Amino acid sequence: MPDFTDNLKPASPGGPEILAEERRQSDVPVGELAQHLFPHHDFLGRQQRILHVLGQDPLFSKAKQMNLSRPERYQLGLARAKMLRRLADQHGWDAEDQSMSQYLCDDVSPYMVHYTMFPTTVREQGDEKQRAYWMPKIQAGEVVGCYAQTELGHGSNVRGLECQARWDPKTQEFELHSPTLTASKWWNGTLGRTANHAIVVAQLLLPKSPGSTEYANHGPHPFIVQIRDMKTHKPLTGIAVGDIGPKYGYAPMDNGYMLFDHFRIPHSAMLSNYSRVDPNTCTYSRPANPAVVYGSLTAVRASIIMHARLVMARAVTIAVRYTSIRRQFQDRDNNDKSAPELSVLDYPTVQIRILPLLATAFALHYTGAAMQALYANTRAQIDKGDFSKLAVLHAQSSGLKSLCTELAANSIETCRRAMGGHGFGGGSGFIQLNNDYLSKPTVEGDNWMITQQTASYLIKRMSSAVANKGKSQDEVEQTCRDWLSNEHNSNISPLSIFDSDEQLVQAFHRRSRDLTYRAYVEREVKKRSWNSLLIQLRKVSHAESQSILVTNFHIALNDSKSSPSPALKGHLQTLFRLFAYYTMDAEARDFVKANAVSDEDLDMLPGKIQELMAQIRPHAVKLVDSWMIPDFLLDSALGRSDGKVYEDLFHRAHRLNPLNEITFNPYYKSDEIVMGQGSDELKKIMAKL
Amino acid sequence: MPDFTDNLKPASPGGPEILAEERRQSDVPVGELAQHLFPHHDFLGRQQRILHVLGQDPLFSKAKQMNLSRPERYQLGLARAKMLRRLADQHGWDAEDQSMSQYLCDDVSPYMVHYTMFPTTVREQGDEKQRAYWMPKIQAGEVVGCYAQTELGHGSNVRGLECQARWDPKTQEFELHSPTLTASKWWNGTLGRTANHAIVVAQLLLPKSPGSTEYANHGPHPFIVQIRDMKTHKPLTGIAVGDIGPKYGYAPMDNGYMLFDHFRIPHSAMLSNYSRVDPNTCTYSRPANPAVVYGSLTAVRASIIMHARLVMARAVTIAVRYTSIRRQFQDRDNNDKSAPELSVLDYPTVQIRILPLLATAFALHYTGAAMQALYANTRAQIDKGDFSKLAVLHAQSSGLKSLCTELAANSIETCRRAMGGHGFGGGSGFIQLNNDYLSKPTVEGDNWMITQQTASYLIKRMSSAVANKGKSQDEVEQTCRDWLSNEHNSNISPLSIFDSDEQLVQAFHRRSRDLTYRAYVEREVKKRSWNSLLIQLRKVSHAESQSILVTNFHIALNDSKSSPSPALKGHLQTLFRLFAYYTMDAEARDFVKANAVSDEDLDMLPGKIQELMAQIRPHAVKLVDSWMIPDFLLDSALGRSDGKVYEDLFHRAHRLNPLNEITFNPYYKSDEIVMGQGSDELKKIMAKL
Repeated sequence: MPDFTDNLKPASPGGPEILAEERRQSDVPVGELAQHLFPHHDFLGRQQRILHVLGQDPLFSKAKQMNLSRPERYQLGLARAKMLRRLADQHGWDAEDQSMSQYLCDDVSPYMVHYTMFPTTVREQGDEKQRAYWMPKIQAGEVVGCYAQTELGHGSNVRGLECQARWDPKTQEFELHSPTLTASKWWNGTLGRTANHAIVVAQLLLPKSPGSTEYANHGPHPFIVQIRDMKTHKPLTGIAVGDIGPKYGYAPMDNGYMLFDHFRIPHSAMLSNYSRVDPNTCTYSRPANPAVVYGSLTAVRASIIMHARLVMARAVTIAVRYTSIRRQFQDRDNNDKSAPELSVLDYPTVQIRILPLLATAFALHYTGAAMQALYANTRAQIDKGDFSKLAVLHAQSSGLKSLCTELAANSIETCRRAMGGHGFGGGSGFIQLNNDYLSKPTVEGDNWMITQQTASYLIKRMSSAVANKGKSQDEVEQTCRDWLSNEHNSNISPLSIFDSDEQLVQAFHRRSRDLTYRAYVEREVKKRSWNSLLIQLRKVSHAESQSILVTNFHIALNDSKSSPSPALKGHLQTLFRLFAYYTMDAEARDFVKANAVSDEDLDMLPGKIQELMAQIRPHAVKLVDSWMIPDFLLDSALGRSDGKVYEDLFHRAHRLNPLNEITFNPYYKSDEIVMGQGSDELKKIMAKL
Repeated sequence: MPDFTDNLKPASPGGPEILAEERRQSDVPVGELAQHLFPHHDFLGRQQRILHVLGQDPLFSKAKQMNLSRPERYQLGLARAKMLRRLADQHGWDAEDQSMSQYLCDDVSPYMVHYTMFPTTVREQGDEKQRAYWMPKIQAGEVVGCYAQTELGHGSNVRGLECQARWDPKTQEFELHSPTLTASKWWNGTLGRTANHAIVVAQLLLPKSPGSTEYANHGPHPFIVQIRDMKTHKPLTGIAVGDIGPKYGYAPMDNGYMLFDHFRIPHSAMLSNYSRVDPNTCTYSRPANPAVVYGSLTAVRASIIMHARLVMARAVTIAVRYTSIRRQFQDRDNNDKSAPELSVLDYPTVQIRILPLLATAFALHYTGAAMQALYANTRAQIDKGDFSKLAVLHAQSSGLKSLCTELAANSIETCRRAMGGHGFGGGSGFIQLNNDYLSKPTVEGDNWMITQQTASYLIKRMSSAVANKGKSQDEVEQTCRDWLSNEHNSNISPLSIFDSDEQLVQAFHRRSRDLTYRAYVEREVKKRSWNSLLIQLRKVSHAESQSILVTNFHIALNDSKSSPSPALKGHLQTLFRLFAYYTMDAEARDFVKANAVSDEDLDMLPGKIQELMAQIRPHAVKLVDSWMIPDFLLDSALGRSDGKVYEDLFHRAHRLNPLNEITFNPYYKSDEIVMGQGSDELKKIMAKL
């Protein structure tokens, strides 16, 4: 409905002018940098191609979805998931096209586990016959599957699962049973309302001998189980299954619960590529090499880091654009009281929150890419039976998953607060991003817990290095030996972190080995209990991960293969130093204790950081542009690439808000809510409580 | 519907047993501590009394409200607000009863601004005649009001507001006008759908002389304006007003926008207790003493701190109870593989996240209480015309608001992550708490910005102390002089923080003065620009606020008036030290630089912190019990006082989740969403997009 607001414009300078000027005065080669960041698999071309398809379908419009209830968000999510699959059929999308379409849709898909963990498990854990039977049905979307491992009372400790699969030699069936409430499967995505099949992980109970009534527990094993009727989609008798209810984020996902009441499944339900039960003798044969599992875990974690860097880039894109446009207060030292207000991003207190995160997105990028490359190489070795690199890869990936998802999760909220009031509004584009991403510090290995794996590995290698027998088992042990011979010396000089990037990298490494050694002494020499060291071990892991991030960033800039142009390389070096100094400043004492950096240099860090931020500031807009996050994905009035911040905020409020279509009765003596409707609306709401 | 799950129980030991044992083995005197924390205005009795009323009314049931859409949440919020007001009439609730009822209801009320800022402004800024006219209508709920200051393009910088009130001497009216889109009022609570009146803050434009067509801007002033029809509740002509749409939190609140198109209001609309315009001469008379405004700001900030400590206590209550009950992994050093899993709270990596926050809730409590007392004293002096303490009170309250809301906001997410997977679920009781509270670091003075006020004040006092003329203006200046004479000396010995709580407190003070002095040197001696110092100034402010928190905590424990029993005092001292050591450890280098603590002592801090946490661990459940946060408010399966964590999580999922009442069609080739309903549901959802 037209009204007098239609002709109003924001005060000048407007966002489009401001962004144009920001872009004009920077020499960042956006095209080159974008290509540098996304060199593989035609990522940018694919993004544009899929974007074009989704942008035309009103089902993928995000404009008003924040007004839907949670049950409606699941329904919308299911409708979108179906449509994406139909579009994939129609356009002949390959696997990468499909994951691009899900990335741009930005809704977690109710089919998610059906596409990932479910078929992966069938492929890896199923034997040839099982794969041949199940995979075509899965690919056709006839079998819709999920993966049910975690239980109400049991998460990280898989050995503590309570759900049982007991072999009945008489009927030649397994009996799935949940003996307690805490044995209920819980959190399992796609299970709640969508799946008709599930991989169920249960304790395998076998008679101690063929005729025995005594059972032995062989630990958790995967079973493939039909859980709902293929026509009516109702749960089968003996199964209680449903959605666990609203969560922080992931509204379109039906995370589920499931209990079994002596539910019988055939012998063929047990996935038997590695473990088998002989149905006649009840004998059990073991996995050939469980390490393979770690291999794919590493691939998952590399992709988690690559995802984390896109999440950070997305948050920082919005924050940089908005704080460039937003004006607030004149310069306090300027005597001209008619001077224009300053761009918020000109304040060091805003820069210190946003620009180190911009640098961090790059740091994560180079390490994610390095891990993907390393995994690809290692995968080939694993396939040849060489598992020598698996342990270090697994150890590194644990610590990195922990640190990188922590950094990314925190970055969203840091950017949001840096944007002041509008950061709290729906136009920020942060609400769903934040609520969804906050799951990441917990899933795929709790961030605090998995640092133990990295630290444990490092302590073992340091122990071997101290023992110093034969040649080093791997490169990490070699670095421990080198550190012990050359750097583990109270008289060693600190490194020159401001004169040499190599020494800056070395400082991180020296500090990490120093912390490793201290942990080794506590555990192996002083024999302290493991649990009493947990806080220290997390620090060891983070220090190592920071060292890896700094190292890979430095290597990438000096890699002759990628060879960025001199202009680009200069900007990347500034970002590299900002990341390194900022990370160092936050944990400065460690670096002194390790004789890695002098106290005087550490005192200079805050000033150096501020200088680097001042260097990056004029290029911030083009640096975030280079990540090429489309407006469709940002879904943010504040972060629009065209700078129309205020126009869009007002449009969303004035024209897209369904609440404004209703006139309410504000007088407290009446229980009428909607003006003129009596108590009808109140009754409707009460019925939902 | 009864099913086989009805008879299932969680694996033992169950939550109730565990909590009973936790409570049995601790000597914390819960009743005494609760009385110690809530000694005034019968807080606990009132809580119980109001709880009883709300608990009986199904309108206040929180069980399923997370499934409502945002428009429904506003409707529910309005219905609850009306009911609370009717209950207040019915039961004769006083102001504190009413705010207790809102606290327990836990929904921000659409009437919120009508109860707070709106009448406060009329009372303080209105003249006698205006008060007499408006206050009875406001109290009767006939006039429903809000406070419209912030604009789309202008927040903290009030002088930058664009909305204009131009005096027309001919018609003797003001013309309210929004010249741009950025002049739109924005964020103003209660404005969007509820209010029929608003205090509008606009630039007062007066003719330079009675007949002149040139206008002078006299800055922002408040006007009381009818904005909607009293019968139809439709906006008056010349006003565009509405709700700004979904936000992170505050779903039941109609934060609004409003634009004026040459909208005319009478002379009497300008609130004229301090500023007046003579309608005949167009002359303007100025405020008597603008400092009074700061006075009430201090009161608001004291209450923000008291609220922050309840928010932290609430988060910590849930986290402590759940992590006591939750079991995960056996002790790695225990060779008995059948040993039970450990309570999660026994891990130092869980303790380090939760227990310092428990200590912090107490720290905030004592400082909030001290500020309230100080404000009450100062208020009496202000009323007598003595403004001498106002500056220090204002400066302290700015820094404390910043630090305390930051600590509280971060504490929610820290506790949530410490709870692992279930922390992400709706049963955590954290979702609404978090989403609502995240506004606090921004509102009532942006947390980063207002630290300038504290630092600016401290630098001024340090400048005067260095000048050393006459006697000190106030006690802060005196402490600067004392520090300059006694502690500003590179040879001074560090303090004995482990042997003496007095010296521990002194260490915080010495470090704060050291940072103040360094900032003074940069600004006043080296003449650095203000903006280049902002990061350092924030540090100055936080250091001073930490010093205040530690000081007030220490004073409260040694105050002869409150005199806790020896058992209680011992626990409080442990919490005091944990708070102090933990805070110090996070910023250890400052303390070395200030010669406040020796490097060796700082090295020992992590070990000392771990010891203190081990001392607190057995008492954690009873320490959180003492905050007496009712289950009704917690609304948390994880934090229930009876420990029935898993029973409640399952109940919410299996019996209260509306999504489980619908059977879906999971097959992608069909666009049917609800099984058997064709494409109807899809159409309904599409209509809402």
